[in-house]
Amino acid sequence: MKFLHTADWHVGRKLHGYDLSTEQADALRKLEKIAIDEKVDAIVIAGDIYDRGMPSEDSVRMVNGALKKLNLEDGFPLLAISGNHDSAERLSTGSEWFEATSFYLHTKLERAAEPIEMSGVQFFLMPYFEISAAKNFLGDETLKTANQCVRRIVSLMKEQFKAGFKHVLVGHFFAVGSLKSDSETPSEVGGLEAVGIDELECFDYVALGHLHQHRASKSEKIKYSGSLLKYSVSEASDQKGVYVVDTDSETIAYKPLEPLNEVRVVKGLFENLIKPENYRQIPDDDYVAVELEDRVPIIDVMNRLKKCYPRIIELKRANGRVNHENNGVRNLEKLSEMDLFKTFYKDTIGEYPDEEQCKMMELALQAVRNGGENQ
Amino acid sequence: MKFLHTADWHVGRKLHGYDLSTEQADALRKLEKIAIDEKVDAIVIAGDIYDRGMPSEDSVRMVNGALKKLNLEDGFPLLAISGNHDSAERLSTGSEWFEATSFYLHTKLERAAEPIEMSGVQFFLMPYFEISAAKNFLGDETLKTANQCVRRIVSLMKEQFKAGFKHVLVGHFFAVGSLKSDSETPSEVGGLEAVGIDELECFDYVALGHLHQHRASKSEKIKYSGSLLKYSVSEASDQKGVYVVDTDSETIAYKPLEPLNEVRVVKGLFENLIKPENYRQIPDDDYVAVELEDRVPIIDVMNRLKKCYPRIIELKRANGRVNHENNGVRNLEKLSEMDLFKTFYKDTIGEYPDEEQCKMMELALQAVRNGGENQ
Repeated sequence: MKFLHTADWHVGRKLHGYDLSTEQADALRKLEKIAIDEKVDAIVIAGDIYDRGMPSEDSVRMVNGALKKLNLEDGFPLLAISGNHDSAERLSTGSEWFEATSFYLHTKLERAAEPIEMSGVQFFLMPYFEISAAKNFLGDETLKTANQCVRRIVSLMKEQFKAGFKHVLVGHFFAVGSLKSDSETPSEVGGLEAVGIDELECFDYVALGHLHQHRASKSEKIKYSGSLLKYSVSEASDQKGVYVVDTDSETIAYKPLEPLNEVRVVKGLFENLIKPENYRQIPDDDYVAVELEDRVPIIDVMNRLKKCYPRIIELKRANGRVNHENNGVRNLEKLSEMDLFKTFYKDTIGEYPDEEQCKMMELALQAVRNGGENQ
Repeated sequence: MKFLHTADWHVGRKLHGYDLSTEQADALRKLEKIAIDEKVDAIVIAGDIYDRGMPSEDSVRMVNGALKKLNLEDGFPLLAISGNHDSAERLSTGSEWFEATSFYLHTKLERAAEPIEMSGVQFFLMPYFEISAAKNFLGDETLKTANQCVRRIVSLMKEQFKAGFKHVLVGHFFAVGSLKSDSETPSEVGGLEAVGIDELECFDYVALGHLHQHRASKSEKIKYSGSLLKYSVSEASDQKGVYVVDTDSETIAYKPLEPLNEVRVVKGLFENLIKPENYRQIPDDDYVAVELEDRVPIIDVMNRLKKCYPRIIELKRANGRVNHENNGVRNLEKLSEMDLFKTFYKDTIGEYPDEEQCKMMELALQAVRNGGENQ
């Protein structure tokens, strides 16, 4: 059989404050088109459908709409699990009714070892779980790591393996050996959660969610589909997409999802970045992280850059900044008002004010001291 | 056909800070038992299933569990709408799949005039709606009141009326002429939302939610089922329950849901209320609103009452309090420390301190003035 493997939709996610719902809706339509064009027999969604346990009404509308379209209108069987960003309890709403239309949504470990059989494949759906839940389910208080838990759960799955069937695991965890990007929550990657790839060798394919780069796993058959969109600057150079897996021909193809609007890093000197021939190459709706190569102060830098790149998501100095004189807070506190002005002027403009400017400032300061009246 | 009419479950509701989930789960089990014992053909839930748009995971678990039990396990068709306390969008999750098992959950006005036909009855499910949504749906910007909107929607329903069928409306609004209690949100009762009973005369039965007293409507066939539990002190003397409606014999029976723990008002003099022969008649788990008939101050009154009635939800003075001397804040501010003490003593104990007590207090005050050292 042929199935599409996606994960980490993170519906509701923002990118540095920008709402991504238009981009997410577009990506979901493109995903649907791939499923139709490729004539897949099922769609696997390996967790983190939502970005948070308490999604907004708009996010609920988008996810409900997408699942309804894929399953009820297009007729694709769905095999889905909850990820660490989902609320298992909330996501599970309706799941008992979904199975009538071959929409299998598992949010509890209890059903992980119940295979779903479809066209010669046994799918095992293992939602994201906490160690405590696994201890409870397995009835073993001595379990300490995700790896130990997965080993035990996989052994229960293996008892259900039928000869002549291919075996696919759908999971949401950090497989050891993976590369990672910035948009997974750091505390949830590594450590307790790491699962060794060896534990998963018994499967013909492992459809993973959690890490956002589709190249995060180096294994040939243990794959992260990657996230639906680029959700951090560190993913700017990633290609996002879905896997199409054919268990008969044993081929795995990566199908790109071209984003509606790109996330990109632009790097250079300020004077170059604000040249029309440079910034006009970049669509206004793209999300831009700017890396300035300048080290000197630039007045009103963000506003001036935003005129060229309206959706700036990050502004960095690639080479740091020049050392300022008197830049210690303690020193500044000791300066006179006039000296403070001169220092500020130098920091901002790059040189000290001239004699006339200083005279004007002196007059202004006097006027302020006199309650706003010049004498 | 025979159906059970319930509404206003308000799962997740608290009573003056007390969690009611145990009581709600118990009431839902009793409701199920009535449905089974009465062999009803369907269950109508007329809105406010949840108490809030963003229910807790525990509330989601309770509602999902109850709906699954009633529909999938017991096999009752369900006819449900969203109320003003529900998030229509969140509640609608899964609704397209539910209909395969005769679970009709309408959260949008758009489907209000699509009858659901069952055993000779046409059910019309009209969820709670805002005037703006009705204007939108009806394409008429001149609509101003809920009454006008309902009239227009009912006229659309009437176009669908089939001869030989009975017609039942399921709605969630304030029908004019109703009595109200305190646990509906006041701003949502009356005014714009009021719907005249005349508009509903064309139905054989109108199954309403919104008001919490099952006697709120005086009409013979336009009924509020009342809430699942007593959700305010003003409902203490209510009987909660469900209606069982038989459209063939045209009978309507009210079936009580006896609460696991009562909400009750106890009224009397403090000295009587704390007598064991009185408070021992009331189970410790009952929720008690105390109305004290005393007018004089009583030291540590709440703690002493709680020893007799552990779950006090309200404490009132039935006859007000005695007028205190010097009880104006402005006067108190002018008093010396010693006079403040005397006034406080009198307020609390009922008489002024004696000479010796005053001396002790004077010494204590001197010690405080001397930085804690007595001299």
